[in-house]
Order: sequence, then structure tokens, then C-alpha cells
Amino acid sequence: MNVPPSAPVVLALDFGGTKTALTVADQHGTRLHDLTVETAAEHGARASLKRAVGAARTLLDGREPVAVGVSTIGIPGAEGVALAPNIPGWEELALGHELALEFPGSELRLATDVKAAARYEHDAGALKGCDPGLYVNLGTGLAVAIVAGGTVVAGRHGASGEIGYNLRTVADVGRDSGDRIPLEDVVSGKALSRAARANRSAELAGHMGEFIDELAFHLVNLAIAVDPQRIVVGGGMVRSWAALHAPLRTALDAAVPYPPQLVPAAHPYDAPLLGALALAVEAARTGT
Amino acid sequence: MNVPPSAPVVLALDFGGTKTALTVADQHGTRLHDLTVETAAEHGARASLKRAVGAARTLLDGREPVAVGVSTIGIPGAEGVALAPNIPGWEELALGHELALEFPGSELRLATDVKAAARYEHDAGALKGCDPGLYVNLGTGLAVAIVAGGTVVAGRHGASGEIGYNLRTVADVGRDSGDRIPLEDVVSGKALSRAARANRSAELAGHMGEFIDELAFHLVNLAIAVDPQRIVVGGGMVRSWAALHAPLRTALDAAVPYPPQLVPAAHPYDAPLLGALALAVEAARTGT
Repeated sequence: MNVPPSAPVVLALDFGGTKTALTVADQHGTRLHDLTVETAAEHGARASLKRAVGAARTLLDGREPVAVGVSTIGIPGAEGVALAPNIPGWEELALGHELALEFPGSELRLATDVKAAARYEHDAGALKGCDPGLYVNLGTGLAVAIVAGGTVVAGRHGASGEIGYNLRTVADVGRDSGDRIPLEDVVSGKALSRAARANRSAELAGHMGEFIDELAFHLVNLAIAVDPQRIVVGGGMVRSWAALHAPLRTALDAAVPYPPQLVPAAHPYDAPLLGALALAVEAARTGT
Repeated sequence: MNVPPSAPVVLALDFGGTKTALTVADQHGTRLHDLTVETAAEHGARASLKRAVGAARTLLDGREPVAVGVSTIGIPGAEGVALAPNIPGWEELALGHELALEFPGSELRLATDVKAAARYEHDAGALKGCDPGLYVNLGTGLAVAIVAGGTVVAGRHGASGEIGYNLRTVADVGRDSGDRIPLEDVVSGKALSRAARANRSAELAGHMGEFIDELAFHLVNLAIAVDPQRIVVGGGMVRSWAALHAPLRTALDAAVPYPPQLVPAAHPYDAPLLGALALAVEAARTGT
């Protein structure tokens, strides 16, 4: 708040599965105002976007941001946001186009939330100096990002790390997505919330054990494939780190030839927002 | 053979699980003499090395190579070759040290076979221009290499891609390697040969089906993690491409959000040797 009203600001938004986090910062990235609003998933993608933009306008208080950095579930493209089933309609939303109309004078940058978070943790958090490193997001959904040679591996279609789609057993081989249960439906915050609503507590404890074993299975095989120096875990489920850490540690030690370090993210709950902010600060500095 | 006897030559060796391939080439990489010798696995690592060096001396016919490029199963290090159980004693063999004693006037370069092959296929074969790309070796053993940003991901300990160690089911989580069957014991040329010796042909056909399903399971999950443009398959089992291709293609199409291309390597049987040769040519050019 020590910034004069006329000083340039940037805006960052992180569109998650259950909430949108926002921050307004000065052009160096110092955060001035934060806000979180619930995603209006039940009213669809456009309502969620409108709610987020309204919150941004409140934070901006009449100022126009020099740049807007956005991280989102899914893979933002020209026509829509791919692989984003958690907000109905989000896949058909031309997010970049809509935000460009909303902030016509601002540089705009969009990224997948987990990749933005991994980049931020690599540049300024728990993955710093790790080559390669593995970032795991345990939030509403499930995804990872591989950092190698100082860069987040994007994948040919920006879709690397979307392990929520993983096959769970050999019996799933050859089955279309409608005929099998993808990993994210079992191993994610969303899955655990559903189990909590449906089950008594004893059953939930059992479910949590199965959840961790299944997560460990995929994490071990990823660690074997990548041989990372460190695995960094972010997302809302880091709140259950005390329950997660020991069994994951044991699983990695038992099976991975060179067991990597395993730590929570430096910014487990807002690395995607901080990644979006870093994009906005960079855009403000470099322009187009 | 059009090279005068005094022209400088380089030597390349590829130490595989069942054989060692050798080539002598001019300093530009044009192959002059090739030879393949069986690995003397039953007599241990030192006998296998001695047999390979003897073959090299025959090929060199009195010349000293300017440079020696080596690819090997396992991860060559100062003290030994890590993760190389397929030749008894190979893990304790200081391969680089032994070869430096044998060829004291030569520049020496060592690499893991699958990574050397992936690099060669990326530079001059079926992975050319792919970012990222995935190389899969179906030989005596099983391993992959991830190519991203034009570089083979080495891993923190040179051990990325060693998916022969993968967990096969969630029930394997937390089990030490002695208490579970790693993937390579089921999905590899070695595993298939063992099954062929033990079983009648009807059972072998069933085994081949299980083999392909299990390979497909891990290949699908790797493709989801990396989002490669193309998967390139090398190694001796490419001889069974007609049986492998269709079920792997179906499995990728059914489960991977952006199914990658799937093709055999440009040099399926000698990419590791060609990779070793490329290392030797580069060493001859650049020196230490």
C-alpha cells in the first residue's frame, strides 16, 4: 500500500477447480491486494469467469493492469481450455480471448496451473537447483510437472504431466475413457471429498490408505522414469502431509534405484498464483 | 577400406546383455569393419570385456584408435557400472578405467546404451525434430529415454528411464526389490526367451499377449506423463513389430489425451552402437 495510486500494477489470477485466487501486485511482483472467490462451477464456466473478473475489478479499484498473468486448470489454447473437466463448460471457454476483451490494454499470459507452479517452485521455491525435478499437484485434481535442464517439460500439446488420465491396472489397457476409472477419480482431493461425503469415518481411513498406495504406485514409477533429485508436492492436500509423507517415503525408498528427496512445496497453496504473477511481471517488463 | 593404413580411426563398442557389437570407423564416422561377439556372461564380466577387447584388436589390426566410444547396459561410473544385473559382475567392473588402461592413447567416452541410442535416433534417426520424444528399448532388458529440448534427460544419477525396475501393481507398493517381480522380469526379451524355453507354443502365445498388455500399460502412462510427439521403439524385439504395433497403437489411442506417433527406430538393432560411434567421432574432433 506504499505504492502511489498512479504506479503501474499487474494482475494475476489462478483458476482452480473449486476457487479462483487473485492478486494485484506492483510491477516488481510485490503483492498489494489478495482475494479468493469460489468457482461458480454449478453455474458453469462463464459465471465463474464473470465472478473472477468482478473480483479483479474490485481489487484493481479503477486501475488498469499493465499485464495480466493467468494460471488455470487445463491447457489454455485459442479455442478453449483443453483437459479441464472439473468446471463444466471450461473446455469450451476461449479464456484468453475473453480476458483480452476484458483487459484490452494489458499484456496477457496464460499457463497451465501445475506448470506455472512448478516453474515458480523451480525459480524461487523448493525445486530450486533441481535437475531434473518433479512437481506433484495434489489439489482438486491430480497432475505433475517434470522440470529438466531448468525448463518445465511442456509436452507436444502442452499436456505433459496430466497423470490424472493414467491407467490404473493392466486390465484397463485398450478401454476407452468412458469404460474405465481414470486415476484422478480415485487419487485427488475431489475423490477424497466424495468418499468423505459417502462413507463413515472407518471406511474413510481405509479409503485414505488405498488412496496413498495408489498415489505411491504412480509416483514410484514416475520417479524411476525421471530419476529426479527431488519430488516437491503442492496443492490443498499438502494439509495432510503428516499422513502422506511416511508411506510415500517408504514406497520410494523400497523401489526407486536412487530414491529422490520428498518435500512439500515452498508455497504449497499458492504456487500456481505466484507462477501467474511471475508471468505478469515478466510480461510487464518485456512487453510483447 | 579405401582409407590408407595410416589414416586415423575410431573404435566404438556396444556392450549389451547378450552380445557386444563393435565397429572401427574413420574419424568422420564411416564404418570400415564391424564385428559382433557373444557376451561371455557365464564366465562373468571380466571374460566378456576381454573377449570384446580381443575382437577390437582384431578389427584394429595394429592401429591405435584416436578415440573410443562405448555404450553399455547400466550406468557407467568411476567405480563400476550401476544397474546392470544382466551380466554377472558387470556392476563391479570399472569399465572406464579398464578401457583407459587398454587404450591409453585414446580419448574415451562412455554412455548408457539406451541413452546413446536415443540421442542417435534424435540426431539422425526416427526421433529427429521431436520435442519431446520417447525412445523405448525392447531388447534383452527394458528401458526408455526421454528427449526434451533436444537433450536426453539423464536424471540426477544418470538413471532416468530405467523402467525395468517399475512397480507392476499397487500391491507391490512398499515391497523391497527382492519381494516383488520388477517389470523387466516380465516385459523384456530375456523374459520372453525364458517363457519360450519353459512353455508350449499355445502358452507362449498367451504369454505374448500378457507381455504386450503389460508393456502397453506402462507405455500409456509414460506417454501421458511426457506428452511426446512420437514414440520410437528400438532393440531386438522390433523383429516382432508386426505383433507389437497394433495392440500398442490401440492402447495409446484409447487412453492418451493426445496419442503420439508410434514407429520403429531408424536403426532398431544398432542405434546404441551408432550412438557410441557418434561419441567417438565427437571425441576425436574435440579432444579432451
